Amino acid sequence: MSKKIKVAQYGLGPIGIESLKLAASKSWIEIVGGIDIDPNKVGKDLGEITKIENLKGRLVYRSLDELIAGNKPDVVFHTTVSKFKAAYDQLEPLARHGISVVSTCEELLYPQLLNADLAARLDKIARDNHSRIIGTGVNPGFVMDVLPVCMTGVSRDVREIHVQRVVNASTRREPLQRKIGSGWTPEEFRQRFKEGKAGHAGLKESLALIAHCMNWKYTDLTEVGDAMVADADIKTQFLEVKKGQCCGLHQRAEAKVNGKVALTLDLKMYLDAKNPHDAIQIEGEPPLDVVVNGGVAGDHATVAALINTAGRIQKAPAGLLLMTDLPVPVWR
Amino acid sequence: MSKKIKVAQYGLGPIGIESLKLAASKSWIEIVGGIDIDPNKVGKDLGEITKIENLKGRLVYRSLDELIAGNKPDVVFHTTVSKFKAAYDQLEPLARHGISVVSTCEELLYPQLLNADLAARLDKIARDNHSRIIGTGVNPGFVMDVLPVCMTGVSRDVREIHVQRVVNASTRREPLQRKIGSGWTPEEFRQRFKEGKAGHAGLKESLALIAHCMNWKYTDLTEVGDAMVADADIKTQFLEVKKGQCCGLHQRAEAKVNGKVALTLDLKMYLDAKNPHDAIQIEGEPPLDVVVNGGVAGDHATVAALINTAGRIQKAPAGLLLMTDLPVPVWR
Repeated sequence: MSKKIKVAQYGLGPIGIESLKLAASKSWIEIVGGIDIDPNKVGKDLGEITKIENLKGRLVYRSLDELIAGNKPDVVFHTTVSKFKAAYDQLEPLARHGISVVSTCEELLYPQLLNADLAARLDKIARDNHSRIIGTGVNPGFVMDVLPVCMTGVSRDVREIHVQRVVNASTRREPLQRKIGSGWTPEEFRQRFKEGKAGHAGLKESLALIAHCMNWKYTDLTEVGDAMVADADIKTQFLEVKKGQCCGLHQRAEAKVNGKVALTLDLKMYLDAKNPHDAIQIEGEPPLDVVVNGGVAGDHATVAALINTAGRIQKAPAGLLLMTDLPVPVWR
Repeated sequence: MSKKIKVAQYGLGPIGIESLKLAASKSWIEIVGGIDIDPNKVGKDLGEITKIENLKGRLVYRSLDELIAGNKPDVVFHTTVSKFKAAYDQLEPLARHGISVVSTCEELLYPQLLNADLAARLDKIARDNHSRIIGTGVNPGFVMDVLPVCMTGVSRDVREIHVQRVVNASTRREPLQRKIGSGWTPEEFRQRFKEGKAGHAGLKESLALIAHCMNWKYTDLTEVGDAMVADADIKTQFLEVKKGQCCGLHQRAEAKVNGKVALTLDLKMYLDAKNPHDAIQIEGEPPLDVVVNGGVAGDHATVAALINTAGRIQKAPAGLLLMTDLPVPVWR
């Protein structure tokens, strides 16, 4: 039996708690503590927060330094922010301490897209200190990027890749139902999307990761977002939306390759969505047409992606890694 | 620009020729020659055999020694036999010379299943000599093993995995149409299947690879095969089958995990098959239901899998490798 991986949880929001709970059920993981800046959480016992017996005695610390003074983790699950720039000051000290990071930070899926210099800097620090840093999840991290890339492993030629995802937000957790703009006016959604205060993070990064793997130089990368508008009153477990109000989002990223739109990622997340699914069409030889009926359920699967990735990352070379640098994803 | 990979083709049957043709179109591959024992092929020019201009001057050699006396390849595409034991005497010298091998040998997908000792021996020789040996393809190698494993990367829990593949053999090359038993009586098919002279190779290996990745100890591994019987006369580009004759095969491998049938692989390959597709159901959390509409076309995709795998294998650690040890499959 190989040694357990020592894990700490960085960020104790809903996803962080879910991640802890799943990690606690794995025989190959030993949880050593948590980190959060919220004064209401600092000093709390993870056993009490999660109601999981075998986490009792593991505490929430205010900082990385306080955590590692007691017990240094091998891997940190990082679930705090969406933007790589905002995450950077949390990630760099982890890399310097030689601690590996598996993160839900959406931009970290392909941080080279928006912050190439910062990504190169973090990569060097991680290499120098034997740390591995990776961003993952279900989306970004799997259905709209890794899975389409994986399908091309049997391709003689690939000319275009198109991915659609339709998520029924009514079956998802409350924060997601609110985040997609439920109850706003369509105008409010559009305004907030324009200001970068609404919308799904990571769609452009998914596109950039696919392009990187295909070795495609793309141009004209665009991303647009609009409100999905309720055509009847909607009531979920958590909220109500009136007919004509925003009930979710429709977001689309696309780019041209050799002057032609060759990469499109189309995402709809809205309340009471009919026929939720993930779909991938690859134009090439052979043509490929893949459908995940019902789609990959997001919240539960996101923490699974984190934990399963932790199971593979320690054997990878040090550095700032991409999901497509690691071996084939696998449940662990 | 990185250095080209020097490649030789071992086996110049139809798949070997297809492999050479595709490899010749890749800017990162330099083809140095071929190997075949057929006296009618030895000494021939690959440019003439393939009708590809830039292969002119590359010859077919009788043996590995004669090939490497001229120009030693980094990687060999190996497309000769289905059984690992039969391939072993071709593979061991390649490993000893530090040459990596990407093979269509079906049992090589998971050679530990039938020949664990021989696999361990080849692994050691490959490690000692910096060679990487791997078996791949579309099936086995992707749709019924690597792809289901990849899907579990977003699983919290996996209890059962079921895979179905329906191939319309009417659209495939002549040797495949004959290999599946077209025109035999159903009795002939059953007899030959029982004798190991008919049937699809590699189905048990696909199952064993999935079980290995799930860390499942399985029991009661069974494999059954029967004829698909034509319910009307069938005429393809290559042959005719009368009503009541065999027009293909239905093969199924399954195994129990914890006393319950948890792994099933079901394959139908027959002429005029309706609705060809690949389907994966994963019972677990979340449940996953994946369909490749039309399926992954075999012949063309098989050589693509070979060549795409060659693009990733040289960075992997030395040894006898599994497809799930390599990074995510990708077109190259």
